[in-house]
Amino acid sequence: MSLLVLGTVALDNVKTPAGERRDMLGGSAAHFAMSARLFTKVHLVAVVGQDFPTSYVQFLHRKGIDLTSLAEADGETFRWDGEYKKEDFNKALTLATRLGVLEGYLPEVAYEHRNIPHVFLANIDPELQLKLLHVMNQPKLVGLDSMNLWINIKRRPLLKLMKTVDLFVANDGEARSLSGENNFIKAAKFLRRVGPKFIVIKKGEHGVLFYSDQFMFSFPAYPIEKVVDPTGAGDTFAGGLMGYLSKAKKINKKILKQALLYATTVASFNVEGFGMEKTASLTITKLHERIQQFKKFISY
Amino acid sequence: MSLLVLGTVALDNVKTPAGERRDMLGGSAAHFAMSARLFTKVHLVAVVGQDFPTSYVQFLHRKGIDLTSLAEADGETFRWDGEYKKEDFNKALTLATRLGVLEGYLPEVAYEHRNIPHVFLANIDPELQLKLLHVMNQPKLVGLDSMNLWINIKRRPLLKLMKTVDLFVANDGEARSLSGENNFIKAAKFLRRVGPKFIVIKKGEHGVLFYSDQFMFSFPAYPIEKVVDPTGAGDTFAGGLMGYLSKAKKINKKILKQALLYATTVASFNVEGFGMEKTASLTITKLHERIQQFKKFISY
Repeated sequence: MSLLVLGTVALDNVKTPAGERRDMLGGSAAHFAMSARLFTKVHLVAVVGQDFPTSYVQFLHRKGIDLTSLAEADGETFRWDGEYKKEDFNKALTLATRLGVLEGYLPEVAYEHRNIPHVFLANIDPELQLKLLHVMNQPKLVGLDSMNLWINIKRRPLLKLMKTVDLFVANDGEARSLSGENNFIKAAKFLRRVGPKFIVIKKGEHGVLFYSDQFMFSFPAYPIEKVVDPTGAGDTFAGGLMGYLSKAKKINKKILKQALLYATTVASFNVEGFGMEKTASLTITKLHERIQQFKKFISY
Repeated sequence: MSLLVLGTVALDNVKTPAGERRDMLGGSAAHFAMSARLFTKVHLVAVVGQDFPTSYVQFLHRKGIDLTSLAEADGETFRWDGEYKKEDFNKALTLATRLGVLEGYLPEVAYEHRNIPHVFLANIDPELQLKLLHVMNQPKLVGLDSMNLWINIKRRPLLKLMKTVDLFVANDGEARSLSGENNFIKAAKFLRRVGPKFIVIKKGEHGVLFYSDQFMFSFPAYPIEKVVDPTGAGDTFAGGLMGYLSKAKKINKKILKQALLYATTVASFNVEGFGMEKTASLTITKLHERIQQFKKFISY
């Protein structure tokens, strides 16, 4: 079944110990879609400015991503300038953010896509996430991601939104700052009490913790020796998770574990190249090969 | 087969968000032995001062730990005062260290114990670890632990020692400072090049990474919601690892994975109480119960 994602499409300037790239295609929804497309049809809801290269539109289209609800507005595309230091590749330093067309954006979803059963609200202003959700017709599974900026300045709408979603993904810092708990299990329990029945805490190179009332499990990350650029790893992870779940007939413990294996593994490709260098050329066959290696790495 | 450990026996003053304890039985060799005794006969090589409570000697003896090579010297027992802050339970802050009888200590091993095939050099001055090793008759498997203090002030003897051991355990900070690498796989490869064929990187609440030329694997930590006192968790981990390996007929991938499951799980008990509160009352039956839970937690 198909999957709809709301989030950002951005132009990124990124500096890492491995090098520097300018005007890369980025953004939470774009990274998510580049990953989820491996599993299902993805419908992208986002906005770009007039400066957005046609080549990037064509590129997303060629990857099979549906762009019916990709709006173009007067102004500049959202831009993010970030840096990663050698000492802590898990932490992105934001050098600059220019909202551009994100200011004043109201998500619009093509009428024929409002019944899509799987929805992911990738990182963007929680008020826009709420608006998108109001447009949709009782989706079966709604996933949500956010970031520290919104936790700090829009905590109230974010908490309101969390009450209505099924699955919440947070990185370690976000889980800790939302919950005020340093212990991940306590943090996960706090997030569960807020609303979502499935809590996924992404710990970067340390793997992932899944929490629900019925069960809890954890995987390490796929071991990557040469990290090039982690930008979008969390979105790529979420794309694998939701992509896998949207294909499943039902959601149970086994399916969730499989989905997180896929999510972890697809994210490992993302960090091996700048932007979407590695995920754009990824095939489900290559992904399966690495999943087999990963299973050996974590089996007991 | 039996197991010999050299390390410290200490009196610890520890403060954590869960409370404070004074004059607790601690030290690398004591924590190691309290864990390894669940698997095999453990022979403790260490020194205490005249102030060391007889009740602690009796306590170790009652736990089945052989104290033939526990020396008593003139002076005070080694003391460690430490604190853990709520913000980072993974990191011990050393408030004070008093070497006491550790100064001038020369490890002596009872003659009949020099043929013991499994030896662990728990955290203590690397020059003492080297001396112990010279006394032993070609042990089959030698494991080594150290700490940042020795990495900083006795790097040369430590590296010399590493050339001669089979297994090296390091926590994340130690692995990084010894190797100069932030990436754990690069760090593990560096440590492997120094000498030991098995490298174990303990990442606290984030689990463990095992590295050898033939294979690499990783487990998350057993999830503990109420951490009380992590002191000795690394030694308890090492005790489980070496204890399990010393009982195995041969060492292969499967055995190493099992040993690390046991190591991780026994360490999870340690952090749930001050000092040895939880490990002293632990039985192999209780350990097996938690291992079953842990397997569910990490199975895919």
